[in-house]
Amino acid sequence: MKLYYSPGACSVAIHVILEEIGRPFELQLVALKDQAQNTPEFRAINPKGKVPVLVRDNGAVLTELTAIAFYLGSTFSEAGLWPADVEAQADTLSFVDYIAGTVHPQGFTRQFRASRFTPNPADEAKVIEQGKALAAEYLETIDKTWKGDTWVMPQGYSIADAALFFVEYWAVKRVGMPVPPRIEAHLKAMLGRPAVQRALAASGMAA
Amino acid sequence: MKLYYSPGACSVAIHVILEEIGRPFELQLVALKDQAQNTPEFRAINPKGKVPVLVRDNGAVLTELTAIAFYLGSTFSEAGLWPADVEAQADTLSFVDYIAGTVHPQGFTRQFRASRFTPNPADEAKVIEQGKALAAEYLETIDKTWKGDTWVMPQGYSIADAALFFVEYWAVKRVGMPVPPRIEAHLKAMLGRPAVQRALAASGMAA
Repeated sequence: MKLYYSPGACSVAIHVILEEIGRPFELQLVALKDQAQNTPEFRAINPKGKVPVLVRDNGAVLTELTAIAFYLGSTFSEAGLWPADVEAQADTLSFVDYIAGTVHPQGFTRQFRASRFTPNPADEAKVIEQGKALAAEYLETIDKTWKGDTWVMPQGYSIADAALFFVEYWAVKRVGMPVPPRIEAHLKAMLGRPAVQRALAASGMAA
Repeated sequence: MKLYYSPGACSVAIHVILEEIGRPFELQLVALKDQAQNTPEFRAINPKGKVPVLVRDNGAVLTELTAIAFYLGSTFSEAGLWPADVEAQADTLSFVDYIAGTVHPQGFTRQFRASRFTPNPADEAKVIEQGKALAAEYLETIDKTWKGDTWVMPQGYSIADAALFFVEYWAVKRVGMPVPPRIEAHLKAMLGRPAVQRALAASGMAA
């Protein structure tokens, strides 16, 4: 398998999952800061121009964080990152999807790429404030609806924890915003996992 | 099962899937035009304040379109909407997620709720134009990367078709924007399905 990633991007969630699984994989850098996602070479692999991208062992490309997390959890079920019961599978997927489809693009992309959310550069500071408020609201919702213990899902550590990890890491380490206590504790627990430490180290990200 | 929906919203994708499956289900209206998603009663069911929401037969609430589509396809596998092979499952989920997590919120929400994408009402027309351009680009990407025949996935009709349906319906019937020929043909094929006709009729949407 091969993971196309960018340091600090949401692809770290997939990197963590791969480290937890422990099967061999290659890393391929796509530096978003250099617009590497927009080169013809990368667009030929992922026409959507984003990471993460997983190349599977059969050579087929897979895009979208939620689908890649599902695929890895489900295929390498011996790693215990994906529940056996379909009700719990759906709840786990719902959580991952909320992070990847709402918390990231609505809360954090507003803060990191404000120009995508207003045609007027003078309004970017307002967009960043709105992103911070939305991110705080989403993290509150996650805290209020928490059903697990240390980990997100009641069945234990799963792909949902890797998904929460990248947004809580952004919130605390990149933006410095306050987060609910449960999420602060979750980040600390994640940072204690060797798989997470390996994924961060490989990207030069602070642990 | 019970589906919380709003006429014309993306919840129609789940409504179509339920109609295809043919098991009994209730419909519960949450009229977004009346802000019904923000009432304390509905927020108690879904704190995120959005549809679709599925109440499963065990009473547990499930949110996020991708997760609900996965759940229904996977649980009622006899309906043939979810492939048996995990590689095809991942590709199907990736497609659904691209629609629900990118095409809808980045392309169409910009057109339908421009005020969410600029703090300045004077810029809303520009946001709408940007939404149209993004939606056109996303639909081109879907057309260019199409791997099926009439239906989206090579294995045949699936939850991916129900997902594409709601955005192509918006594009053609609500916005009146041109769409690539394959997507125009897909919309026509969808509108010919009795399950789709029943779902539209129940919401008072034009077939």
